[in-house]
Amino acid sequence: MCGIFGIYSFERINVAKKIYYGLFALQHRGQEGAGIATSDGRNIHHYKNIGLVTDVFRDDVLQNLFGYIGIGHVRYSTTGGKAVENCQPFVVKSSFGNIAIAHNGDLVNSNELRMDLEKKGHIFTSSTDSEVIAQLLVRELLKTSDKIEAIKNTLKKLIGAYSLLIMFNDSLIAVRDPWGFKPLCIGRDDENIYISSEDCALTTLDAEFVKDLEPGEIIEIKDGGEISSYKLDFDVPEYMSIDVDVPSIYKGATTCMFEYVYFARPDSTIDGISVYKVRKRIGKILAKEHPVEADVVSPIPDSGVAFALGFSEGSKIPYYEGLIKNRYVGRTFILPSQNERELAVRLKLSPVKSVLEGKRVVLVDDSVVRGTTSRRIVNMVRKAGAKEVHLRIGSPKIISPCYYGIDMATKKELIASNKTEEEIGKKIGVESIGYLSLEGLIKAIGRKDLCLACITGKYPTDINFEKIAKRL
Amino acid sequence: MCGIFGIYSFERINVAKKIYYGLFALQHRGQEGAGIATSDGRNIHHYKNIGLVTDVFRDDVLQNLFGYIGIGHVRYSTTGGKAVENCQPFVVKSSFGNIAIAHNGDLVNSNELRMDLEKKGHIFTSSTDSEVIAQLLVRELLKTSDKIEAIKNTLKKLIGAYSLLIMFNDSLIAVRDPWGFKPLCIGRDDENIYISSEDCALTTLDAEFVKDLEPGEIIEIKDGGEISSYKLDFDVPEYMSIDVDVPSIYKGATTCMFEYVYFARPDSTIDGISVYKVRKRIGKILAKEHPVEADVVSPIPDSGVAFALGFSEGSKIPYYEGLIKNRYVGRTFILPSQNERELAVRLKLSPVKSVLEGKRVVLVDDSVVRGTTSRRIVNMVRKAGAKEVHLRIGSPKIISPCYYGIDMATKKELIASNKTEEEIGKKIGVESIGYLSLEGLIKAIGRKDLCLACITGKYPTDINFEKIAKRL
Amino acid sequence: MCGIFGIYSFERINVAKKIYYGLFALQHRGQEGAGIATSDGRNIHHYKNIGLVTDVFRDDVLQNLFGYIGIGHVRYSTTGGKAVENCQPFVVKSSFGNIAIAHNGDLVNSNELRMDLEKKGHIFTSSTDSEVIAQLLVRELLKTSDKIEAIKNTLKKLIGAYSLLIMFNDSLIAVRDPWGFKPLCIGRDDENIYISSEDCALTTLDAEFVKDLEPGEIIEIKDGGEISSYKLDFDVPEYMSIDVDVPSIYKGATTCMFEYVYFARPDSTIDGISVYKVRKRIGKILAKEHPVEADVVSPIPDSGVAFALGFSEGSKIPYYEGLIKNRYVGRTFILPSQNERELAVRLKLSPVKSVLEGKRVVLVDDSVVRGTTSRRIVNMVRKAGAKEVHLRIGSPKIISPCYYGIDMATKKELIASNKTEEEIGKKIGVESIGYLSLEGLIKAIGRKDLCLACITGKYPTDINFEKIAKRL
Amino acid sequence: MCGIFGIYSFERINVAKKIYYGLFALQHRGQEGAGIATSDGRNIHHYKNIGLVTDVFRDDVLQNLFGYIGIGHVRYSTTGGKAVENCQPFVVKSSFGNIAIAHNGDLVNSNELRMDLEKKGHIFTSSTDSEVIAQLLVRELLKTSDKIEAIKNTLKKLIGAYSLLIMFNDSLIAVRDPWGFKPLCIGRDDENIYISSEDCALTTLDAEFVKDLEPGEIIEIKDGGEISSYKLDFDVPEYMSIDVDVPSIYKGATTCMFEYVYFARPDSTIDGISVYKVRKRIGKILAKEHPVEADVVSPIPDSGVAFALGFSEGSKIPYYEGLIKNRYVGRTFILPSQNERELAVRLKLSPVKSVLEGKRVVLVDDSVVRGTTSRRIVNMVRKAGAKEVHLRIGSPKIISPCYYGIDMATKKELIASNKTEEEIGKKIGVESIGYLSLEGLIKAIGRKDLCLACITGKYPTDINFEKIAKRL
Repeated sequence: MCGIFGIYSFERINVAKKIYYGLFALQHRGQEGAGIATSDGRNIHHYKNIGLVTDVFRDDVLQNLFGYIGIGHVRYSTTGGKAVENCQPFVVKSSFGNIAIAHNGDLVNSNELRMDLEKKGHIFTSSTDSEVIAQLLVRELLKTSDKIEAIKNTLKKLIGAYSLLIMFNDSLIAVRDPWGFKPLCIGRDDENIYISSEDCALTTLDAEFVKDLEPGEIIEIKDGGEISSYKLDFDVPEYMSIDVDVPSIYKGATTCMFEYVYFARPDSTIDGISVYKVRKRIGKILAKEHPVEADVVSPIPDSGVAFALGFSEGSKIPYYEGLIKNRYVGRTFILPSQNERELAVRLKLSPVKSVLEGKRVVLVDDSVVRGTTSRRIVNMVRKAGAKEVHLRIGSPKIISPCYYGIDMATKKELIASNKTEEEIGKKIGVESIGYLSLEGLIKAIGRKDLCLACITGKYPTDINFEKIAKRL
Repeated sequence: MCGIFGIYSFERINVAKKIYYGLFALQHRGQEGAGIATSDGRNIHHYKNIGLVTDVFRDDVLQNLFGYIGIGHVRYSTTGGKAVENCQPFVVKSSFGNIAIAHNGDLVNSNELRMDLEKKGHIFTSSTDSEVIAQLLVRELLKTSDKIEAIKNTLKKLIGAYSLLIMFNDSLIAVRDPWGFKPLCIGRDDENIYISSEDCALTTLDAEFVKDLEPGEIIEIKDGGEISSYKLDFDVPEYMSIDVDVPSIYKGATTCMFEYVYFARPDSTIDGISVYKVRKRIGKILAKEHPVEADVVSPIPDSGVAFALGFSEGSKIPYYEGLIKNRYVGRTFILPSQNERELAVRLKLSPVKSVLEGKRVVLVDDSVVRGTTSRRIVNMVRKAGAKEVHLRIGSPKIISPCYYGIDMATKKELIASNKTEEEIGKKIGVESIGYLSLEGLIKAIGRKDLCLACITGKYPTDINFEKIAKRL
Repeated sequence: MCGIFGIYSFERINVAKKIYYGLFALQHRGQEGAGIATSDGRNIHHYKNIGLVTDVFRDDVLQNLFGYIGIGHVRYSTTGGKAVENCQPFVVKSSFGNIAIAHNGDLVNSNELRMDLEKKGHIFTSSTDSEVIAQLLVRELLKTSDKIEAIKNTLKKLIGAYSLLIMFNDSLIAVRDPWGFKPLCIGRDDENIYISSEDCALTTLDAEFVKDLEPGEIIEIKDGGEISSYKLDFDVPEYMSIDVDVPSIYKGATTCMFEYVYFARPDSTIDGISVYKVRKRIGKILAKEHPVEADVVSPIPDSGVAFALGFSEGSKIPYYEGLIKNRYVGRTFILPSQNERELAVRLKLSPVKSVLEGKRVVLVDDSVVRGTTSRRIVNMVRKAGAKEVHLRIGSPKIISPCYYGIDMATKKELIASNKTEEEIGKKIGVESIGYLSLEGLIKAIGRKDLCLACITGKYPTDINFEKIAKRL
Repeated sequence: MCGIFGIYSFERINVAKKIYYGLFALQHRGQEGAGIATSDGRNIHHYKNIGLVTDVFRDDVLQNLFGYIGIGHVRYSTTGGKAVENCQPFVVKSSFGNIAIAHNGDLVNSNELRMDLEKKGHIFTSSTDSEVIAQLLVRELLKTSDKIEAIKNTLKKLIGAYSLLIMFNDSLIAVRDPWGFKPLCIGRDDENIYISSEDCALTTLDAEFVKDLEPGEIIEIKDGGEISSYKLDFDVPEYMSIDVDVPSIYKGATTCMFEYVYFARPDSTIDGISVYKVRKRIGKILAKEHPVEADVVSPIPDSGVAFALGFSEGSKIPYYEGLIKNRYVGRTFILPSQNERELAVRLKLSPVKSVLEGKRVVLVDDSVVRGTTSRRIVNMVRKAGAKEVHLRIGSPKIISPCYYGIDMATKKELIASNKTEEEIGKKIGVESIGYLSLEGLIKAIGRKDLCLACITGKYPTDINFEKIAKRL
């Protein structure tokens, strides 16, 4: 995942603190590390570290990040351990001055690119795609003095997901990959141009939403706040034809469906589509696809809330919060011992007996991450007195790994890939289980230019599985 | 407020870690400080500090808290600054061995008791009521060797709210004051007897709920897990007659209505009444009392959620989350400057434009703490496109201070005490405003033996306002 | 041990920061905890915690300690664990306003006093003597409104070592016990009166030394900086007659000889006698008492330096630093494992081969704390090439525990109490060993009114060994 | 400055903890940052951060640094701010596997090398020389598969000071530059080969000293602990002829004289010469060169101690510690305000009045860093009663900047470069001042193959002052 946020202040006001607030609004996209790099027109100042935005940055650190251009990053670890080196932005010194890069997404050919560069004598200090991109870019800059040209030549080599912010001493460039995997949008106010992974951060800073970047679009912001737009000339191959009666937003694009289902903040709007509304529609469609006679619909908080509200609306079964999430979860606490795993679940979620007792309960969640956790929750609900428990999942079964930036180590539905729905339901111990259909998902989102690889196993780009495997 | 939690392990297993988890489950009752005292039968071990439970206790600290009896406390500062001295449990050495006390509630005559003791040569190291109680108790123990007798004699001197845990080297005593202001309940499992402010902590530890303590009840747990119950012989004066057609649970009791409305966790059940159900009923009654034509009902999260769901059910207006709370709020972040107060609100709450745009919106909250914050939220909702904004409040207007333990410095409705509903609505900038009626509140709770002093100005105990004033 | 430091600013300037610097200068007297209490004339503000002065106090903490009167304390743990409760100053609220007490020394009858008070219904929140003194003082204040009278009546009950600072809302009182066990002195500048355990802290703050408090002297500082002196009417019993030809400074006093030998900073002057000069004289006398043919005299740093210089002067054997102390020792480092104890010594001390190789070396130290450490150092010196190693100790053998405030758990010479010098030397593995004689010690210090209990086993006060034992 | 430490365990035991202790012993060579990289034969693990060794490494961090080969670094900032990026070892991934480099010294042509590389498309993530060396080395490795050959080809491009540790997955290489600017030595025990900046760290780890690396020597340690030695074929140009009757150790070498005078630990021996003995000889020669009639010789601690002892020996004036250094200096404390600069000096150093009063005092220091600090110390000594103050400096006047790794921002003798000795003495306020002569220095060290550039202004290498200037 990861989130990126950039500002160009054409009134030349320091931007670090605003970036800090922007990253705070994007914190849900990555909790492992955070960083900010700023340029005062001549020098780049930067700081990054392991931890949440609020832990990494203290006031004195922000005050030393001078400059009217800046980019920030929140990191969600997909590969590699926790290391400062792998936090971003990645800042380098080159013969073209300082360059800072922040990247959201995973390239599928980064290993090949990296090995090519190493054979030419380049060395790497991190395992980030950003460093690969930086090395490629500097090589292209040796060939042409036209930055946009060099960037285009660099991008043509990249296969995979990349929403990018590239900061030079005196300009800020934003790129969304030709497939449009990851979101990226522009905003503005009287003093600044903003680039953000999601528009929720624009709202936080009271900036006006301007537009989503189109797949393959390159935006350059220069002196005075002038914005130029370029188009990467790149043929995205045909993906898969899906026969659902909804339009495509961008021809040939394959935007990650998980942004709508899980990752993006509900108050964000991606490519014109409200994330919150998608989630409520998912619940409604789920109610039609997997109807059940029950007394109560309850979400597994937090991610099941909008689905469950939609399910309630679609099924007319009343919505109640049957499980309460402890507000202080997220803090590091002393873990229960191995044989107290159920306690670990109860510390996070607590059943509302008065709601569940004697009831037929529909639980709604976004996915079945691991069977064991789901089973523990179901047990807890039963123990609180539920007569029946029915599980409804707001996405189709996930059966294939994602190579574009979503960590399948944490989101992997081990259960789903080998088992039928019935088997899964039995393992979890519910009276019935129902996954959203692929068609239902596409309808709920309302666009068909989506990457659905994790559901269908068909990838929108070529993938050299052998080389990918080495990396993992 | 504050929360208290105690365990007596009749199987003589160390209890500190379980108390830690119990306090974690009660964290919502106090975030300023935390402490645990344990007894191994001969010595008392204790640790307390400023901060959240998860910050105060590390593994090595817990491991040094030996003992099979223990009590814990989470502190919510009502008066005084942040000082370790004022954290609890309060532990003393006396000629009767070590005594540890944890207290939830405020005595209204503690100043008088304290001055009396000081005149007799006693000194105080903290400003807690616990220390006053400890000093009184030790004086009574000089007169009688019967602990329960000494405790009864001590309690007879106390006026106000007190749910108490008193730990001696070899026994654990729990007390709920004769008015039953604050909740307190017992649970058990195969190895332990538990005492907790709320039963949600029993659920977390998978203990079986046994019963709520009755007002004036004293429970003693001794060797082998034997539980003895005593009754404090104490005449609670007549409070006020409320002509609402709901029963009293305990004759003459005056349980704090704010526990149901705001403080307790929604999954708790107090004196047999589900907090979550009360809140949903409040919303439903509110919809009847203050109907409005609108398109969307939305809570101000988190506290407005159950009210808004009830309002939606009662009014048939669809429920949507029009405002999203940033999950990372609660972390210490670098504050916006004075002239960015609106940013401070937007960092916590974010409007969902797609839900609000062009809509007539009903916002539901638990109270109007300060007009300014409410006004900012309303502005934000309008800016997101709402055509009309109607505010509904899940409690009557708060007009009088609480002397029994609820901090009116933070919960004080300055606005409410001097203004009519219309004036308040105008100040906040809404099309309409509606507070729950007193009758509606009592009906929603479903019992009439409540303390309603903050709404009516009539106090269930004598109060020497002059001496109280000195303290504040 | 412990160190105390107080300021009364008659110009009404905040004193907290100056006390902080004073405590920094007294840090050698106690590293376990630190605290400061200040009075602004009406309220007492205070803060204390575990740790070094520089760790406990940050700028924001100091800035909240308002007030023109203040006392501070550095704690050296003699009994009990590390607990904030046992840090000082001890601050209490009483009917006579707030009182803060800081104490250096140990009372030998505190257990009896404590039990007496407990029988009268008093309770204790710490295990400090300060709390006992506070309770006694408040009881005396009930009987007389004359503070000095009440203090005198309190002090008459105390047996043992106490240099005390007592702060009321508007006055500061300093006391040195009638035996003069611990040092205490007064200083001043144009704005403040200072009281300090040692005059080195006065030098740090550029204050002028006024005088040492005499044994049994009570000093009161009041408005305008007026200083009144009172004398405690108290008969100190005859101690022991020592037939050494040096004068007594105070008739009947028994000042702790270890202050001169080990504890006080070398740049301090106690009761008119320079600590540094005492230590050099000790070395000189040691050279006469235990002469040896050798090539090099080397200290075991830091405490042996002055002794070794004196030894070199007395013996004409050249002084070299044969062992270098790592400057960064004192930092918490990851300890070597059990079977690397020698590494632990080498991390602290390093031999200078070029100095030791082929030489007959005299090592000089202040005491033999444990035979094992000394043996490891001697091994290290031999391994570096020393032909012979002779050990000289700058104090007589310590054979009895101290009940007046010096921790025999860390300073106990286990070896010394049961063994002859020859046996000790053999155990440590040196060619010869020599302890300073009692007479030599007294001559070096230059006064005979000393407490020598740890050397002679004869105590200057009555001691109820049974009750003391209980405490330990 | 900086210090480097490496271990190859031919018994394949984890080395991280031993490196930690080695760096602790070298902490005096750099306090700004620390790092360790280890290799388990396949992967390199590393960690580095700002701070002291004991702050940077906790037990859990060390335990994750697996591997039987390892190198460590303590950083002393010469240029650039405090940034983790500039800490070492510098670790890179290349087509030749992982490489880690730790460097002590400054290259004078690193800017030129860096610009050359940048022109070829290389990028830099730090401002360290290590990264330049790594990039050059990887380029050479593309040309030859022989590591030693590639290293030699790389080194031939480097001008300036470099003691280097280079770690590959399965070997450890150490290099001392052809001028021998910085020390580097080898040790061993039954399980490990050690490389260290100073032999004091070998002593700490109880390793046997094997030899100093010769200027231009390359040592390779491979499987089984086999050590191969290579010689860099490199012509060091003639430096300057010094007509002092002492030998050269290495023909043509120019070892930094400041290692002997100030930087190295006194218990170290560099190129066969004991640092402690050099310092004592300096004092003795200084006494001959600048005799004075006085009563007391006192060092300014800590660096003046050995000089002062030598001065005392040479002059027969008795040695006393007239100034005591607070043992807790080095801790971060709250700074006195601007107008309390004298307090800042008194917090660090305290005069011993009994030693200074009425005396003619010789103060001995290693250099006059800034006139103001020296003047404050002299004032303090006078205020303590000294009748006369004579200052003796254990090195010649420093008049030229060092480009080989000694930070002239902190050690710069501003005063010395423009003023005569008399003028300096007048400014500081002493009765007389005396600097060591150049001849005296060389005699005291006992070798003439020294870099004396900071004293004479003549540099042993070509220096492109224009390019150096840009960097500073």
